Amino acid sequence: MSETKSDQDWMQFALTEAASALYRTRPNPAVGCVIVKNNQIIGRGATAPVGGPHAEVFALRQAGEQARGATAYVTLEPCAHYGRTPPCAKGLVESGIARVVIACADPNPLVAGKGVQILKDAGIEVVQGIGEAQAAAQNRGFLKAIATGMPYVRLKIASSLDGRTAMASGESKWITGAEARLDVQHWRAISGVVITGIETVLADDCQLNVRQLKDTEDLSGVVQPKRLVLDRQGRLPLNAKILMQPEMLMVMGPFRQELADLGVTQLSVQPLNTLLQSLSQQYQIYDVLVEAGATLSTAFLQEKLVDELISYVAPVFLGRSARAMFNAEFDRMAEQLRFKLMDIAQVGNDIRLMLIPSQETL
Amino acid sequence: MSETKSDQDWMQFALTEAASALYRTRPNPAVGCVIVKNNQIIGRGATAPVGGPHAEVFALRQAGEQARGATAYVTLEPCAHYGRTPPCAKGLVESGIARVVIACADPNPLVAGKGVQILKDAGIEVVQGIGEAQAAAQNRGFLKAIATGMPYVRLKIASSLDGRTAMASGESKWITGAEARLDVQHWRAISGVVITGIETVLADDCQLNVRQLKDTEDLSGVVQPKRLVLDRQGRLPLNAKILMQPEMLMVMGPFRQELADLGVTQLSVQPLNTLLQSLSQQYQIYDVLVEAGATLSTAFLQEKLVDELISYVAPVFLGRSARAMFNAEFDRMAEQLRFKLMDIAQVGNDIRLMLIPSQETL
Repeated sequence: MSETKSDQDWMQFALTEAASALYRTRPNPAVGCVIVKNNQIIGRGATAPVGGPHAEVFALRQAGEQARGATAYVTLEPCAHYGRTPPCAKGLVESGIARVVIACADPNPLVAGKGVQILKDAGIEVVQGIGEAQAAAQNRGFLKAIATGMPYVRLKIASSLDGRTAMASGESKWITGAEARLDVQHWRAISGVVITGIETVLADDCQLNVRQLKDTEDLSGVVQPKRLVLDRQGRLPLNAKILMQPEMLMVMGPFRQELADLGVTQLSVQPLNTLLQSLSQQYQIYDVLVEAGATLSTAFLQEKLVDELISYVAPVFLGRSARAMFNAEFDRMAEQLRFKLMDIAQVGNDIRLMLIPSQETL
Repeated sequence: MSETKSDQDWMQFALTEAASALYRTRPNPAVGCVIVKNNQIIGRGATAPVGGPHAEVFALRQAGEQARGATAYVTLEPCAHYGRTPPCAKGLVESGIARVVIACADPNPLVAGKGVQILKDAGIEVVQGIGEAQAAAQNRGFLKAIATGMPYVRLKIASSLDGRTAMASGESKWITGAEARLDVQHWRAISGVVITGIETVLADDCQLNVRQLKDTEDLSGVVQPKRLVLDRQGRLPLNAKILMQPEMLMVMGPFRQELADLGVTQLSVQPLNTLLQSLSQQYQIYDVLVEAGATLSTAFLQEKLVDELISYVAPVFLGRSARAMFNAEFDRMAEQLRFKLMDIAQVGNDIRLMLIPSQETL
């Protein structure tokens, strides 16, 4: 007889299921579910690409009649509403499941707890909060956007150890190594949009799409992020590479008929915070990645719109005439922008820092 | 019966003995020795403070008659010469030891292998290289200086994430946190000298001594590093705190009678590389720590005199008008100073990077 596993152990399998759906379910969250009976998994599932079934449906289908009396582990509270699919809470009740273990509550304050209530009303035992931190990390944008109406904003910066992003001449390829650049593709692939500035497009003629992922050979199911160019003066050249997929492109700037003809989504010039709000509320874009030059990066930081700073540091010195990574000017130490250090990792010969803006004052 | 341990396992005990002598044996290396018989340690020892016995002597004394037929594990090749103490290789032979396992060879090219030869000539089995990397890390300066005549130079820099060390006004206390500042004390405590520039002394009135160590409550046995101020124009004020222990102070600058009267060691103005050479060859200073401002730090780096860069990065932005950590100016990316990343660690809310200058070109 095999060793008895804890709820934590079984939830890990559900989290692994959820992870397998990463990159593929946007704008839906990546959710995982396993159904366990007699110390064995009898059904597993993860969210299908948008329009397809939720994780619980797959797991229940696989379990079939055996689901009666079993325990279901779900990384996100089962939905209680009829949307693109019927409510999962109802499906669990009908299956005869006896116990449901949930990692994260539904982030929508208006419906949070409704899924749980349906289960409890049917006499099902419900446990909540097992593996919550891990499940939350899998769906940061969805959880924040549904709860607050604002997307989760990651700002990626790559700099030298002495805080420079390019030489005075603009020469900049490449400061960080191939591994770090590959690592960045992950953040693009979990994002609904990659935002950049027109200066970066003019300098690098970048595409900002996902071309390679560390843990996924097959990119066919990966939902590509949209690309949003902030172009207040309408300078985007029509031969820019980023226009090779016009249906994936958004431009914030003065209206241009030639972009409309190509199918580009155009947004009126507006402050960054209302721009972010409309990305979330009108376009179901919950995870935003900013990959821009110092001016735009500094603006996002100074306006306190960044949830997470992902800083790649190359162990090189570029010298004091090279371009600064952060453009604001402070007179006194007390004005400094501070971060809480969440994680450090070596990526090739570079360092990756995960940082959260800190509200603490000196 | 206890599990049989490998040579690697036993050498770990010898390395731990050596570590216990850290900070206390300069200018001698910190060496550890254990003597093992019938799968048990029957003697252990570490280098005593200078003038006292070497590690092997303590271990042999403790083992006594039982040493006959035993195995000795030593982190550094037993010495073959009469110095302050009789040669350890002879002592091992006389004890009747049957087998000697050595981590590091003697770094002196003129005497390397002589200790081993004495042992082999007496019919003792000798194994070399077990735990070599760890043992070498414990005595970097000694190993380099004896082999090359130049000390091992560590450069410590503390900066913000955007590569700044102070505001334009000079305001700089404190960029990194208390844990990082405590961590720095370790590097001071393993150093024969801490080098700084007169500008740093004038700005901070620093003492640069060891005041606290993470893993040692009792500082009484810790050999304090000397302090060396580079003061080409003889500007050191006589009321500077660093003069509170004049016998620990060295000043490179024009001769000043008042410093001589206080017992300060004065060095003539000379290039950094000859200065380093004389520290090693005339003063038996094998580990040098540079804690200085950007100008002097940049000079050490540009002149390729740094063996190891210890970079503490505080996750804050100080802005582009703040002072740069690295003062050189490069026009082209290819001129950049590159490093190999050896280790990263989180120290409080700061990051510590261990870096080795890289000779690779782009």
